[in-house]
Amino acid sequence: MVFGWIDEQAEARRRAGLVRTLRPRPAESPLLDLASNDYLGLARHPEVTEGAAGAARTWGGGATGSRLVTGTTALHGELERELAAFCGFEAALVFSSGYAANLAAVTTLGPHGSLIVSDAGNHASLIDGCRLARGETQVVGHADPEAVRKALDAHEGAAIVVSDTVFSVDGDRAPLAALAAAAREHGAGLVVDDAHGLGVLGDGGRGTAHAAGLAGADDVVVTATLSKSLGSQGGVVLGPARVIDHLVNAARTFIFDTGLAPAAAGAALAALRLLRREPERAARAREVAADLHARLTAAGLEAVRPDAAVVSVRAPSPEQAVRWAADCRSAGLAVGCFRPPSVPDGISRLRLTARADLSGAEIERAVRVIGETRP
Amino acid sequence: MVFGWIDEQAEARRRAGLVRTLRPRPAESPLLDLASNDYLGLARHPEVTEGAAGAARTWGGGATGSRLVTGTTALHGELERELAAFCGFEAALVFSSGYAANLAAVTTLGPHGSLIVSDAGNHASLIDGCRLARGETQVVGHADPEAVRKALDAHEGAAIVVSDTVFSVDGDRAPLAALAAAAREHGAGLVVDDAHGLGVLGDGGRGTAHAAGLAGADDVVVTATLSKSLGSQGGVVLGPARVIDHLVNAARTFIFDTGLAPAAAGAALAALRLLRREPERAARAREVAADLHARLTAAGLEAVRPDAAVVSVRAPSPEQAVRWAADCRSAGLAVGCFRPPSVPDGISRLRLTARADLSGAEIERAVRVIGETRP
Repeated sequence: MVFGWIDEQAEARRRAGLVRTLRPRPAESPLLDLASNDYLGLARHPEVTEGAAGAARTWGGGATGSRLVTGTTALHGELERELAAFCGFEAALVFSSGYAANLAAVTTLGPHGSLIVSDAGNHASLIDGCRLARGETQVVGHADPEAVRKALDAHEGAAIVVSDTVFSVDGDRAPLAALAAAAREHGAGLVVDDAHGLGVLGDGGRGTAHAAGLAGADDVVVTATLSKSLGSQGGVVLGPARVIDHLVNAARTFIFDTGLAPAAAGAALAALRLLRREPERAARAREVAADLHARLTAAGLEAVRPDAAVVSVRAPSPEQAVRWAADCRSAGLAVGCFRPPSVPDGISRLRLTARADLSGAEIERAVRVIGETRP
Repeated sequence: MVFGWIDEQAEARRRAGLVRTLRPRPAESPLLDLASNDYLGLARHPEVTEGAAGAARTWGGGATGSRLVTGTTALHGELERELAAFCGFEAALVFSSGYAANLAAVTTLGPHGSLIVSDAGNHASLIDGCRLARGETQVVGHADPEAVRKALDAHEGAAIVVSDTVFSVDGDRAPLAALAAAAREHGAGLVVDDAHGLGVLGDGGRGTAHAAGLAGADDVVVTATLSKSLGSQGGVVLGPARVIDHLVNAARTFIFDTGLAPAAAGAALAALRLLRREPERAARAREVAADLHARLTAAGLEAVRPDAAVVSVRAPSPEQAVRWAADCRSAGLAVGCFRPPSVPDGISRLRLTARADLSGAEIERAVRVIGETRP
């Protein structure tokens, strides 16, 4: 039977307790949400949803073509200028997803003959970027600037160092200053994915590179998503204008993709303006995360100290992680559940996200439920 | 200088006349549009833009997480059910882009040890899918079922045949029935990208696979975009439920990406319902293309006979193609301009798209401008 091997894999997943199913949610969920990446609580903010609605009315339901043909509207230009200015970069380019932005950055900046030094904990989209790039990839240990230095030592010619700034699974931060120093010693570029940093870290949420004094440097390129702190959909690459021009001319996920939908551009722009006006939202997300971690730890749970807005709690096994998350859900709390193959180290976790708009009472309730349902 | 090689490449592009720049368009363009992929003229339809606006209001500016965590709303479920039913498949799964859908389909259905037989004219996203897949790819000549048969002959074990249904550059149709026959002789699966067929070909726009009697077959998987005929953003994979379940569990561009924005899902769903109610839109797009081709040919231009809604006109060189498109623009007509490296055969073209809502007078005007500006 064609595709017969699919059934064998499905059976293996069932046996391992690793089956994933989609669970459509209603518009008004009764659950307390600690599972989404809506770090600033902006996805449902009226200004953001009106940003989406207004853009759809003005510009249409879709961009209608590739960014190089009909898919660049004045709205895309406005969003790119404001993102670049906010994050402190010369130029920006938006994509239909963060995944597409990462594929674009790594493939176009890791050409044939170059070395790509990639952190072992990097996001799937960076890994796929490395696999598609013509350069040679060397994977180094997680958050290990010395290993980066050694890999660069052994290579002649162009190189980039590729890393998440905040790792999605444990919420830990990359040693960005040390990575930048290692890259600079060797004349290598630094390409970092700030998906979980933009809107949370740095002055008023300007991101991890801004916080590290790296924004706007001519050897630093930052990617990010519009779908987390900015409550929308899409991705962005920020960097020197010459790098962005290069992407416009060479990035396949830019050239051969329909432009980002106007509604997504409009929502992201509205969220960005809101964040500029209310910069305290970024600090509040970090405070909520710290509070969540402190209370979980006080309750005897094994939680990783958060560097941004992700708080990870270890579970004994994939099966127990799934049951724990289900028990939380039954008690009115939505939490993320990360397990193989989504976790590079094979350790299953509950993954909690600290939204800026969580109240003290909600945090208390979340911690109580997690404690009471622990395996 | 870091990224110094970028300047050399930029200089080489300048010398070859191949520099691409972004040209933001206003909301109300004075240009007659024969450049977008808005085949049915639905992107600006009030029902579609209200579909986007209403979804953003009800569901938020973004999906807030991966489809496996918080990113599946009831709206996503509704869109997937209606897409599957309309196109005649058991199940459907939507993605943030057609690019992501193609990466997902090819990588998950072309595993280690399998053979992927890929048409030389395939879209960049299918090619990148082949490059990311663990299976071995064999590229065969364009639209050549005999070559497909030979490639399959030489392989033992699982295999898929991968092709566009309508090729973007020349608008020609793949020999789908012959490809399906070749695949079936060998017990191979057929994976086809119907980006330019959905909404244009088949009964009421049900797509190329439906027209070929292949919809719903247990060995056929179809991908498509929501950003062309459906006037929105996103991609979809249609196929047997077991294949779709496999993608939910294994496709990296599904698992590690934020779900499609509610506004995009809402716009696509509104467009789909409109098309179901007004099935004549599909036939009208084909009629406009045939009319456009007949008039261009009568005017002595070298146009490819269209199988769907794309009409390709050959240009003598990249420089002349660019000048021709610019002269059209000056005369009030937007046309696409395809040139290396976007064209696999190195031949530059004007690319015209036949929107269902073009009037006879508009078609006449377009042909007059193209004829008057020819190099």
